[in-house]
Amino acid sequence: MTGAVPRVTLLTDFGVADGYVAAMKGVIAARLPGVHLDDVAHDLPQGDVRAAMWALRRYAFLYPPGTVHLVVVDPGVGTERRALAVEVEGRFVVAPDNGIVSLLLDVAGGWEAAEVARVEAPSAEGSTTFHGRDVFAPAAAALAAGDSLGSLGPEVADPVVLEVPRPSRREGVARGEVVRVDRFGNLVTNLPGRWLEELPEVEVGRRRVRRAPSYGHVEEGGLLAVVNSDRLVEVAVRDGSAAERLDAGVGTPVRLRR
Amino acid sequence: MTGAVPRVTLLTDFGVADGYVAAMKGVIAARLPGVHLDDVAHDLPQGDVRAAMWALRRYAFLYPPGTVHLVVVDPGVGTERRALAVEVEGRFVVAPDNGIVSLLLDVAGGWEAAEVARVEAPSAEGSTTFHGRDVFAPAAAALAAGDSLGSLGPEVADPVVLEVPRPSRREGVARGEVVRVDRFGNLVTNLPGRWLEELPEVEVGRRRVRRAPSYGHVEEGGLLAVVNSDRLVEVAVRDGSAAERLDAGVGTPVRLRR
Amino acid sequence: MTGAVPRVTLLTDFGVADGYVAAMKGVIAARLPGVHLDDVAHDLPQGDVRAAMWALRRYAFLYPPGTVHLVVVDPGVGTERRALAVEVEGRFVVAPDNGIVSLLLDVAGGWEAAEVARVEAPSAEGSTTFHGRDVFAPAAAALAAGDSLGSLGPEVADPVVLEVPRPSRREGVARGEVVRVDRFGNLVTNLPGRWLEELPEVEVGRRRVRRAPSYGHVEEGGLLAVVNSDRLVEVAVRDGSAAERLDAGVGTPVRLRR
Repeated sequence: MTGAVPRVTLLTDFGVADGYVAAMKGVIAARLPGVHLDDVAHDLPQGDVRAAMWALRRYAFLYPPGTVHLVVVDPGVGTERRALAVEVEGRFVVAPDNGIVSLLLDVAGGWEAAEVARVEAPSAEGSTTFHGRDVFAPAAAALAAGDSLGSLGPEVADPVVLEVPRPSRREGVARGEVVRVDRFGNLVTNLPGRWLEELPEVEVGRRRVRRAPSYGHVEEGGLLAVVNSDRLVEVAVRDGSAAERLDAGVGTPVRLRR
Repeated sequence: MTGAVPRVTLLTDFGVADGYVAAMKGVIAARLPGVHLDDVAHDLPQGDVRAAMWALRRYAFLYPPGTVHLVVVDPGVGTERRALAVEVEGRFVVAPDNGIVSLLLDVAGGWEAAEVARVEAPSAEGSTTFHGRDVFAPAAAALAAGDSLGSLGPEVADPVVLEVPRPSRREGVARGEVVRVDRFGNLVTNLPGRWLEELPEVEVGRRRVRRAPSYGHVEEGGLLAVVNSDRLVEVAVRDGSAAERLDAGVGTPVRLRR
Repeated sequence: MTGAVPRVTLLTDFGVADGYVAAMKGVIAARLPGVHLDDVAHDLPQGDVRAAMWALRRYAFLYPPGTVHLVVVDPGVGTERRALAVEVEGRFVVAPDNGIVSLLLDVAGGWEAAEVARVEAPSAEGSTTFHGRDVFAPAAAALAAGDSLGSLGPEVADPVVLEVPRPSRREGVARGEVVRVDRFGNLVTNLPGRWLEELPEVEVGRRRVRRAPSYGHVEEGGLLAVVNSDRLVEVAVRDGSAAERLDAGVGTPVRLRR
């Protein structure tokens, strides 16, 4: 990894006040003193693997090749699930094998994965392992230092992939659903933005929403459907919350019509 | 920018859980691998330009020259407002042109500004632009890499400046108001600290508050008026909240008398 | 400090939205441009010195030697308490002298401490000093740059040490208590994990809890007592909150029996 600047991003549901995240950072910094440690978020809803999965999709490929994305959202902590390291389009993800990488694998041209089996924990602490500190952080440090995926453990051919609701399209009607609600109350759907050109009538539940090229095209407080920055159809309220206005959330059906 | 260490600070109202902030960081890191990325805050009240303006004033000039302060609080997202890059006392601010820099321009000896018009977005994503990722982050990376303000776009002579309430003083009475309430419930006023020496009687609304050299000079739970670390008169409760005690907030009148 | 990469971690109860933390970061970056600044947390309960003390214990020694841990939780702000710099097992802590370092000193082989008395504040700002910016941040920057403890001020032989509840053990019964509740509702006790082997019957208040090697050994929602990653007995609910389930908190008695 000659010349590259090592960088690890961190996404967890640990909160920060207890010092668990800092423990992970310390382990990485101890092994790789020049590493840049970028927080993504640590306030994900506990155990919400899908929240991690959608967030990761938003930043994973914008970071430069060689970046290691450490994601620890792990409802099965302490149980039998593999620890996973994945290389996808030159970036690495280190995470529990619970589907966090599903969306990345879905869009990527190719990927490789290994089980994290051969890492050295920072110390022989208590009998319960803190996987973030003792497994995931050491693996992230190793990859950021230039170690190969294979050095971490055996190849994994079948990482856990979560079923992501797929939109369908038939006879001029496309059916999808809300897959995320962001902090602003915007409703992100699974409908590809390009469909909106041919099917510009948008319905969220039973409510019609106007398609608009951008927020500037509706009055303040107005509802609109746009193609969002991830190329998906998104329903929003200008300077307001579409989730509240439409009483909608993850799973609410969304239709596009001619 | 030979020898300088590039550093970008980030202040937004995006929250972090959705990965929008990490997307901006990724864009900057991809263009400038050695950049230091310092979070300021991402939990500002949505669209609260004045909160950003006051916070920015607190740290902007403490960072070394060459630092780029990226601030995205943008109630007009998607509408017609310029993206701005400002150089002020050797530091740079990249932000929507909505008044975020008002206080900096007010105190600075001089400044220059340009419209961010010529930046390359990271990819040809959806039709709706995510300005943080596609405009502001690229501009911040360019400036942190040593590019000139002029390389980003045409000069701006009239950045938006918010009206900030000015204190007045006449015949031994100074009139000002609360301009910020911080996390501790301290009431920051717009009254210059030096006035307090000659006009030591402080009134918040109808309540008299004792001037004190420091917190140590009042009992626990005691009210006091001090000159704060930004050289402004501030009203506080030792180990408590002045905002709650006095039922005061932004806009509450504050008077100084002899 | 030839060749070492300077790194400062930051733990405060300031919140981030007001820009106070960023002011501290700016002061450090201005003095040490290549410094890595790692956030620990800024959302500690206000003035909760014990929360800082327990968190610090979790990460302090995992960071590499030379790291400076800046901790500003300071209920006595503005009053007469010393500012402290401590070197312990090669790491530095800069903090108010209020007991934050108690647990580190307790477990360390040796330590040295100095009063922070000779630092240069960033500017001659208001009459009230913002200690984080004007005292603690400059001291952290100096230590991270390789300055000696002695250069900051006179030696301190008697830093404030908080009384930490000690567990007792007699005739096959060990008595301790809950000392922390983490974000997940796990109850961290002061009982050494190794005692659990001989005294495997655990009682929290009047409730019996089963000892288990790990979370995977109980059903979802099940109660268990484990040796945690800090080698202490911890009571948890798999995928739930033990604090809620047992109506327990800091101070709740915990007993181990044969």
